[in-house]
Amino acid sequence: MTAPCERWVQSVELAPPSLQDNTADAERLVGVLERRLDVKPIHVDLATAAALPDLLRDSDFRVRVVVFAAGDHWQLCAVTADDHQPVLGLAVDLGTTRIVLSLTDLTCGRVLGEDSFDNPQLTVGPDILTRIHFSDVGDGLAQLQDMVVQGLNRRIAALCRTLATSPERILLMSLAGNTTMTHLFLGLTPRWMIREPYIPVVNRPGLIKAHELGLRLHPAARLFVFPNIGSYFGGDLIAGILHSGLHRREETAILVDVGTNAEVVLGNRDWLMACAGAAGPALEGGVSKIGTMACPGAIDRVTIDPQTRRFELHTIDDQPPVGICGSGVIDLAAQLYRAGMLDIRGRLVPEACDGRLVAGPHGQALQIVPPPAGADREGLSIGQAEFDSLIRSKAAMYTILETITGAVGIAPEELKTFFVAGTFGAFINPESAITIGMLPDLPRECYRPLGNSSLEGAKKVLANPSLLPHIDAIRERITYMELNVNQDFMNRFSAAKFLPHTNPELFPSVVTRGGATRT
Amino acid sequence: MTAPCERWVQSVELAPPSLQDNTADAERLVGVLERRLDVKPIHVDLATAAALPDLLRDSDFRVRVVVFAAGDHWQLCAVTADDHQPVLGLAVDLGTTRIVLSLTDLTCGRVLGEDSFDNPQLTVGPDILTRIHFSDVGDGLAQLQDMVVQGLNRRIAALCRTLATSPERILLMSLAGNTTMTHLFLGLTPRWMIREPYIPVVNRPGLIKAHELGLRLHPAARLFVFPNIGSYFGGDLIAGILHSGLHRREETAILVDVGTNAEVVLGNRDWLMACAGAAGPALEGGVSKIGTMACPGAIDRVTIDPQTRRFELHTIDDQPPVGICGSGVIDLAAQLYRAGMLDIRGRLVPEACDGRLVAGPHGQALQIVPPPAGADREGLSIGQAEFDSLIRSKAAMYTILETITGAVGIAPEELKTFFVAGTFGAFINPESAITIGMLPDLPRECYRPLGNSSLEGAKKVLANPSLLPHIDAIRERITYMELNVNQDFMNRFSAAKFLPHTNPELFPSVVTRGGATRT
Repeated sequence: MTAPCERWVQSVELAPPSLQDNTADAERLVGVLERRLDVKPIHVDLATAAALPDLLRDSDFRVRVVVFAAGDHWQLCAVTADDHQPVLGLAVDLGTTRIVLSLTDLTCGRVLGEDSFDNPQLTVGPDILTRIHFSDVGDGLAQLQDMVVQGLNRRIAALCRTLATSPERILLMSLAGNTTMTHLFLGLTPRWMIREPYIPVVNRPGLIKAHELGLRLHPAARLFVFPNIGSYFGGDLIAGILHSGLHRREETAILVDVGTNAEVVLGNRDWLMACAGAAGPALEGGVSKIGTMACPGAIDRVTIDPQTRRFELHTIDDQPPVGICGSGVIDLAAQLYRAGMLDIRGRLVPEACDGRLVAGPHGQALQIVPPPAGADREGLSIGQAEFDSLIRSKAAMYTILETITGAVGIAPEELKTFFVAGTFGAFINPESAITIGMLPDLPRECYRPLGNSSLEGAKKVLANPSLLPHIDAIRERITYMELNVNQDFMNRFSAAKFLPHTNPELFPSVVTRGGATRT
Repeated sequence: MTAPCERWVQSVELAPPSLQDNTADAERLVGVLERRLDVKPIHVDLATAAALPDLLRDSDFRVRVVVFAAGDHWQLCAVTADDHQPVLGLAVDLGTTRIVLSLTDLTCGRVLGEDSFDNPQLTVGPDILTRIHFSDVGDGLAQLQDMVVQGLNRRIAALCRTLATSPERILLMSLAGNTTMTHLFLGLTPRWMIREPYIPVVNRPGLIKAHELGLRLHPAARLFVFPNIGSYFGGDLIAGILHSGLHRREETAILVDVGTNAEVVLGNRDWLMACAGAAGPALEGGVSKIGTMACPGAIDRVTIDPQTRRFELHTIDDQPPVGICGSGVIDLAAQLYRAGMLDIRGRLVPEACDGRLVAGPHGQALQIVPPPAGADREGLSIGQAEFDSLIRSKAAMYTILETITGAVGIAPEELKTFFVAGTFGAFINPESAITIGMLPDLPRECYRPLGNSSLEGAKKVLANPSLLPHIDAIRERITYMELNVNQDFMNRFSAAKFLPHTNPELFPSVVTRGGATRT
């Protein structure tokens, strides 16, 4: 894995042809590149070749070329005069909920601007399954593909306008998403991914001409799509591993991406093991009627004074509260537990909840935000069922961590580095997650939020061609472990359904600092 | 160079996916192919991948695939149910004058039918130079490309109708032509090929989607274009070498393709040396006003009784004589020489020509065919200038042969196998060519006409994938020798401008059997 080149954009000066050296224009250029980049062969398509003769001679055989690759396939995408005009790359995180774009100057690797927008497929349904079913009827697949493509076209154009440039300058694009999102984007049916034995159409989509998908970029723009490992382990995770550098570390570390699914990768530079399991919707804003995505007005941080049991709520952008997002729910549960308002089974303690208990449609609920005086707006409250759901989610998460670390003979508590991926990972308070026993009781500095690691991985590939071989290497090195929900798993799961855990020795810092056990 | 597979069409039965083996559909299929063919990677485009899931499941994971390759680039072109429908391949010899098609059943390699038609670019000009100039003005290049593409589309459709099949069944196409014809067909400018230092746009066009050129075949059909070595050594020659097997023989042999240019390859399995030189138009029907292509009515064989000096003329298809083609001109000169009607300098001998000398616009001419009695049609006659032109051509040919063999330290007379390519080679009478000193005085059985070796090479690639690596190997092994028209060359050329040669020891059989020297 030596660095093949610094950048995808290369300035090249060719020795002009002579009677002694009468190689054709295309082979002359490619030959120099192949030697410089130490790769072979680099493909040139007809359109690029056709433009070469005049271009080379008009520019005294000094040109700038854009190459791109996927696996072993190297492609000469474009050749221009060496005119210092920007050559752009677009990195995309194709999320089920949110699509994030980042525009890069490929000549220097600098990020020029970023933008994000809701995945337009949300109009079909917020969850993956609804979209898969939609894709299976009539021209549903084409519709879903078109939604994303047109959405991207609009936002790319808008972002380019903001930056006073043009989508025509975008020559390379790299995209990471989960396997279903990637399939829908490429017009590949996800039908067989939800039926046993859960088979995607492709694992390694490779290099694609962007215009063939209807993307309005430079006509020769190429798209690299991060490969997946299977239906439940997508390119977004591969991009995340690439970003974290997990695969290059001597010490064993773990990477966790929590959403509806918890995806976990454990390993080091010698081996990688992965698994994915349903963690329940509790952690992704689906916990309750008041659960919400991380949007303005979402409660994302909660503090409860253990003495006065006074609530302090923080909302995103300091907007009036409209709901509670994943990190807020975890904070809330942890703080309630510390204040003695939730017991070790995650049940609301009526005597500790004072006047906050209100009658809800499904029994008693804890009022978080009282209705504004005189307003017709309701307050926000959260019921026992929602706490039960959270407990199941956090127990599933912890059990998955126990299972995968157990498979290689270590305990979750022995980890030294714990990467937390995704926007969720960026906002989660490890203190709270540990308090409820969702994450292991490691020194807090072991927790390393990665932010949008899917996007960061996609950006890294645009900035640094030498990372390319890592992608396939990661893919090939990963051992995917099917989670067998057997008796052992269920036993561990049951033990993890307490706050923080049936075995308090696993969470010494929680016990020491006190919690409901104190009351 | 081991045989990667028997055919480009392969029947494949896949192990159905399971929870233990959940590779994606595309990788499952490609993996089996890569192992079977011992190549990697085989690319799959999105359209092919998109059709896979249903196809595989509807056919119980038994399918037929069509692969194709150029150099290191292997492509999965199409996948169908294993339904025994024919899968066709089209081989094309793209000649400057004539285009020849051959349709093959790719499953068994059998030729189903052949057809040929005049290169529609003849309407622009019969010679390459005129077309190159035409291509350089306005949309001339696009026009020339379109002429060939539309011409091919029409004749392919007609040939398919005759054979009760459809162009849609054609999945692979291989094409060999000289470098200019190939460039015009691909829409690549030949402008720089006629200007020093004579540079083509591409040497190795590789694998091209046929529909991108406007060819109406199967939508996924791929086109392999034989690579060239330079502006004056094209894919037709590479195809010819492939067909002859020159590159696999232990013994050194020579291959000569004679047209306006004489292209020569000398070598064996260890080395190949090539050169090309202008042989003059005399050998391609351009010798005179009566010179013609090999068409019905063209005089292609001439016998002159040395005693009575009576002419016996043979015309193609036994039609009334309309002109004389290349092989006819060589026959004529040899027979005139043997009958003492041409002297050793190639001059008409007036006293021997009896009443056949007629007054022409440029001096005296030899009447070959008298005007039909009472008809207003003229007879056919050939003047001294035309014989001079022929002598220059044959001298150039012999000098080129002397030069290339001399470069490796052998004499033309030492060769054991002499391949003569092209339609010209198929009709030339070695006896006559030797008599005039155009070809060396080898035992006649050393001469091996190859027929349309360009087409045969193109057909071979369709029939036998294992030949593919040979094409690049041939290309890479050839040392191209620039013919320096220096004093040495001019001395040899002058010596060769006699019949058969200044040095009669080089042509013992001609001297022994008698010729003009006898008179």
